[in-house]
Amino acid sequence: MTNCILCKEDLKPEEGQLIWRGDDCRVILVNDPDLPGFCRVIWNRHVSEMTDLSHGERDHLMTLVFAVEEAIRHVMHPDKINIAALGNMVPHIHWHVIPRFKDDAFFPGSAWSIKTQETPAISLEARRKKVQELPTAIRVAIAELA
Amino acid sequence: MTNCILCKEDLKPEEGQLIWRGDDCRVILVNDPDLPGFCRVIWNRHVSEMTDLSHGERDHLMTLVFAVEEAIRHVMHPDKINIAALGNMVPHIHWHVIPRFKDDAFFPGSAWSIKTQETPAISLEARRKKVQELPTAIRVAIAELA
Repeated sequence: MTNCILCKEDLKPEEGQLIWRGDDCRVILVNDPDLPGFCRVIWNRHVSEMTDLSHGERDHLMTLVFAVEEAIRHVMHPDKINIAALGNMVPHIHWHVIPRFKDDAFFPGSAWSIKTQETPAISLEARRKKVQELPTAIRVAIAELA
Repeated sequence: MTNCILCKEDLKPEEGQLIWRGDDCRVILVNDPDLPGFCRVIWNRHVSEMTDLSHGERDHLMTLVFAVEEAIRHVMHPDKINIAALGNMVPHIHWHVIPRFKDDAFFPGSAWSIKTQETPAISLEARRKKVQELPTAIRVAIAELA
């Protein structure tokens, strides 16, 4: 769709980084100052809902989402993983895969809830450093699916 | 786990209604005053993350989640479906499957965001009436999977 930002596949460097792109999906490392390691798995074609996809397509997408979850857990050791497909603002299927920590800005709320705290700078810095390992870890996790 | 509310499987009538229970999962119709049709698909056993499940278990759970999505779309005709597995407060796998409407209390934010508006009473009433068809629609959708 011409007015859909996820159809355009434009990604400004300040928004994030394309980590992997396949025929059907792509994986973005989101540049979120409060939640390092936040990734997004996007279906390339414009489709609104998971149940608009065929069963095979759903499986393929969820397999990628869980590969990203696996890589995030391996690299970041979060206290919890959050996974969500919302799309109220951009109704083009995309999954948020977010490592959550007990001291992160929104914990224990959702990543879309009110900020509850400031993460200690030293923790944030350590996580941002760890995130540098994430693109390779995700690519390896996806390669191992084949 | 003894202190996990989702392990206990207690459900007060004011919290919601058990719609379906299988060996591995159960489906709850949540009693949310602002979001009629809000459902929860809960893994019965205490497990924190999707990637703690085997591949077969993940597939089984997601198939149920999408069956619930299908039934919700069929009955409620929402503007968008939101699906999320968060679990920051209760780290026991449960999926929220939420029909969203442009005039609902949180749109276009997440169901965990700040309220943006009051839904017109007449719309809420119509949706609450529709929800009465949902338990049967979900049971049928799940039965058709077998």
